[in-house]
Amino acid sequence: MTKNFENYVLPTYARQNINFVAGKNAVLIDSEGKEYIDFAAGIAVCSVGHANERLTKAICDQVSKVIHVSNLYYIEPQAECARRIVEMSGYDMKCFFGNSGAEANEGAIKIARKYGEVDGQPKRYKIITLDHSFHGRTITALKATGQESMHNYFGPFPDGFVYAKNIDEIESLIDEHTVAVMIELVQGEGGVQPQDRAKVQALSAMLKSRDVLLMVDEVQTGIYRTGEFLASNLYGIEPDVITLAKGLGGGVPIGVVMTGKKDIFSPGDHGSTFGGNYLSTAAANEVLDILEEMKESGALDEHLLYFETSLAKFAKAHPAIFLEHVGLGMMRGLRVVDGDTLGKIINAAREAGVIVLKAGRNTLRFLPPLTITKSDIDEGFARLEKAMAAL
Amino acid sequence: MTKNFENYVLPTYARQNINFVAGKNAVLIDSEGKEYIDFAAGIAVCSVGHANERLTKAICDQVSKVIHVSNLYYIEPQAECARRIVEMSGYDMKCFFGNSGAEANEGAIKIARKYGEVDGQPKRYKIITLDHSFHGRTITALKATGQESMHNYFGPFPDGFVYAKNIDEIESLIDEHTVAVMIELVQGEGGVQPQDRAKVQALSAMLKSRDVLLMVDEVQTGIYRTGEFLASNLYGIEPDVITLAKGLGGGVPIGVVMTGKKDIFSPGDHGSTFGGNYLSTAAANEVLDILEEMKESGALDEHLLYFETSLAKFAKAHPAIFLEHVGLGMMRGLRVVDGDTLGKIINAAREAGVIVLKAGRNTLRFLPPLTITKSDIDEGFARLEKAMAAL
Ligand SMILES: Cc1ncc(COP(=O)(O)O)c(C=O)c1O
Ligand SMILES: Cc1ncc(COP(=O)(O)O)c(C=O)c1O
Repeated sequence: MTKNFENYVLPTYARQNINFVAGKNAVLIDSEGKEYIDFAAGIAVCSVGHANERLTKAICDQVSKVIHVSNLYYIEPQAECARRIVEMSGYDMKCFFGNSGAEANEGAIKIARKYGEVDGQPKRYKIITLDHSFHGRTITALKATGQESMHNYFGPFPDGFVYAKNIDEIESLIDEHTVAVMIELVQGEGGVQPQDRAKVQALSAMLKSRDVLLMVDEVQTGIYRTGEFLASNLYGIEPDVITLAKGLGGGVPIGVVMTGKKDIFSPGDHGSTFGGNYLSTAAANEVLDILEEMKESGALDEHLLYFETSLAKFAKAHPAIFLEHVGLGMMRGLRVVDGDTLGKIINAAREAGVIVLKAGRNTLRFLPPLTITKSDIDEGFARLEKAMAAL
Repeated sequence: MTKNFENYVLPTYARQNINFVAGKNAVLIDSEGKEYIDFAAGIAVCSVGHANERLTKAICDQVSKVIHVSNLYYIEPQAECARRIVEMSGYDMKCFFGNSGAEANEGAIKIARKYGEVDGQPKRYKIITLDHSFHGRTITALKATGQESMHNYFGPFPDGFVYAKNIDEIESLIDEHTVAVMIELVQGEGGVQPQDRAKVQALSAMLKSRDVLLMVDEVQTGIYRTGEFLASNLYGIEPDVITLAKGLGGGVPIGVVMTGKKDIFSPGDHGSTFGGNYLSTAAANEVLDILEEMKESGALDEHLLYFETSLAKFAKAHPAIFLEHVGLGMMRGLRVVDGDTLGKIINAAREAGVIVLKAGRNTLRFLPPLTITKSDIDEGFARLEKAMAAL
């Protein structure tokens, strides 16, 4: 199998040599029968765990009826998914469905650009994003990503992206061509760094007063990852545009851009062949059901708290290695003393049977399934302790 | 349900008021119980028909084990899918997996741009595409699309796209900054217009001699749509880059870019959270099995011929309305005397219980499931005759 990767797959990832063949909630099993506690969830994708019975049933039921027709017709689960997302968010918005986080952000950028146009021509078109942000791998989403190293090779990139060092710097960068600001409320790839709540609220008010759109990339933070349905809910703001992907489909490719600018697009302005089809939206509807029930029963908050407490205890036990505990909800990081040690921890963890991730330069990252049980949390941290002992 | 669309879904499509609830191969059933023969297949997506039992089983089996992990690990069905695509194509290439046609084309454009770079800076970066082409809805894919009307609102677009009126004009547009040419061999959205085989072969030879990449967008033509695995096979050329999507997953979102420039990307150059996950590649592997068996048994060629003959007969019966019969394999069009009449035919067809599409300005388009039976082909054309009588 690794031979097939070498021979037939373009080498865009430095892959670790594990072949997972099955899973059950927060447990993954490889081809040798070894079990792992999964603190990564496919990078925040498997929000309801692996092989979730309700999700499996929803997918099987749907594909045994109809999996896809084109968006030239009504697609009932798509409409239902849009309604649920809008109602759960509490924002007066409409949705467009694509197939990834990058596609959702492309939609957001198109909305901003059209909002800033006059007579078909871009008049206000500049979008301010933050250093260390990550918005995806299409050419425009790459350019929106505030990391110099991402802006090589693939140019000419589209103009009109401006990078702020941090939220404080944003206002000084606004000029008469600025139409939008796009931020993550917790920078995921950048190092699990939450923004300051008061600063975000002040930013939101300032942008509203200047008619500059606030666009929140919730591809990673959305769908209860931070404990609320959206991180925007947790921060108490009302953005103009929000993007979702990762956790929404529980593993089925899906992306959403939602906006309160409900009339921004006319037929023909945007589209996607697969976007919002029966499969992806039926899966999303079941994920939303499962997680909303967990939230309402109090189980989600309980899991979150238990995970956080366990992580804090783990970090405290290794004060020379973990410098800081960052993040929100089930999106957590520990700043490691250096990148080298981080790499060693991830490898030792894998040996000990627990999957963890890297973010930024030196952050050990945790994105477990939101459905992880207390006993799997305990087992995961017990294995991490073993990994630390083996360093 | 239409209320939910009005209230919660951005109006990017002029949707026809049908709510499909189930299907079986080339038959779709709406919420009133009415049956339709589907000559559209979700715009060439449902290559193995609706509710295909083998595809349903492959999907259910996979999601009941594991649906997704990140690309930081090996994913066995992804490697298998890459191997099969490469071997079936006959080209010495490697694959990258995304989630849509647009994402596949973004990957192709990134490959071309990196191929043309020197020392990290774009040196050769211009990509020539054709008038009336369609390459997708991300900002860069839109700009690659050779339709003026697609280049409004969303700028600044990336520079470096040049449009040729037709294949004959391409050579005269090449300059020292040209790195690639991207074409569809049969323009799908543009009007189901196949390119001339000899001209394509001459183009391919000319580009090779000038070290300009030939990139073929097979998002619509690929996966046996034209009768061969790839239209590139049918045309007897060996492109440098090929993109796939639509029919590959049988309804599961998936996109692929494949290239003979196997070392073009290093880890970190490209990526996708969902791309190539267990669900999408397990589905694609089953689709490839089903269609390869049909091809090898002769059934695919038989279906293709039967469809073409039936369509030709239908067109001939209405010489005042259908001016020309275009396309290849199961990707067919009839040029209609005017756009108004085309709209009426599509509506009357729907009334009579058959789903057909529009392409370009005045083309009635046919993209049936590749697994459609002869009796469903007969029934579809019988209903179309009824529709014509009702015009
Ligand atoms: C905040 C954020 N935005 C966008 C993306 C891109 O999503 P995708 O890989 O689905 O295109 C990611 C992926 O990691 C992300 O974390
Ligand atoms: C030739 C071609 N390329 C690209 C695309 C875009 O594919 P998607 O809608 O999956 O992004 C299409 C869609 O119709 C197409 O026909």
